[in-house]
Amino acid sequence: MAIILGIDPGSRYTGYGVIRQQGSTLSYIASGCINAAGTAKHPLVLADKLKIIHDGVQELIAQFQPTEFAIEQVFMARNPDSALKLGQARGAAIVAAACAGLPVAEYAARLVKQAVVGTGAADKTQVQHMVVAMLKLSHRPQADAADALAVAMCHAHSRSQAIVMATRRGR
Amino acid sequence: MAIILGIDPGSRYTGYGVIRQQGSTLSYIASGCINAAGTAKHPLVLADKLKIIHDGVQELIAQFQPTEFAIEQVFMARNPDSALKLGQARGAAIVAAACAGLPVAEYAARLVKQAVVGTGAADKTQVQHMVVAMLKLSHRPQADAADALAVAMCHAHSRSQAIVMATRRGR
Repeated sequence: MAIILGIDPGSRYTGYGVIRQQGSTLSYIASGCINAAGTAKHPLVLADKLKIIHDGVQELIAQFQPTEFAIEQVFMARNPDSALKLGQARGAAIVAAACAGLPVAEYAARLVKQAVVGTGAADKTQVQHMVVAMLKLSHRPQADAADALAVAMCHAHSRSQAIVMATRRGR
Repeated sequence: MAIILGIDPGSRYTGYGVIRQQGSTLSYIASGCINAAGTAKHPLVLADKLKIIHDGVQELIAQFQPTEFAIEQVFMARNPDSALKLGQARGAAIVAAACAGLPVAEYAARLVKQAVVGTGAADKTQVQHMVVAMLKLSHRPQADAADALAVAMCHAHSRSQAIVMATRRGR
């Protein structure tokens, strides 16, 4: 049995998704969004934003006691400025997982879509649709949360394959 | 009196410098480098690298009890890939400071050079030279450590100006 925390980091909104994997069965535990966007009236400085992301992930770990942590890998950011911001958010999230002693797995967006939808070229709506179907959700999670659940599901898929491979090797 | 921890973050080497500011007098406390580079024989995964940076900054805070934290601001990274890596390292370092309750100040590289050398177009050797002269060091610190000391000195300079301004306003 594994409890997987998936994270879709962003400098403003960081999606999270928690699932349980028992054999080949995946079940939904929780999902949502860590909001570090601030408001026009109450803008946040960088250090406050990163602390919100870090503390948010830390609280999720304390609450759901995940055994594994999965995050989307970034290959090509649009531009240096957005890559820097995304990097800072990823750093804050990964540090929270690493400090809690969780193993951190990274998956390229293409691989996540491949695992969940069956094609690496799937769009966000297709990912949301498959997340709802595969986890038998009664509601459609918001986009960031759906992406985070998809990363967690991709990790579950990859774990199952690794377990099958290990079992075959063990025969 | 302020004790300032300056950080020059990098995905492999993170320089640090600690100085004491008492009135207009700056004195050297410590400097060095957090090594998260790994080796060819023992390469490090991303989560381990970021944990080393985070824990390294956390240990510096515990050891030197700084009252302020200063870090170089990044305006234009060379390319998205290096911006992402630098962002992750910055995120790990800033989170350590923010979680310790330290105020985080950011300074553009140009402003740091301006404060230490007198011109924003100074090169690394000039920065090293002025750091040695102004802090009356008997040795030349390595490049990353010198940059970190320069950020801390820039913050001290900026604090003094803020204090003078506040005193003038208070008259």
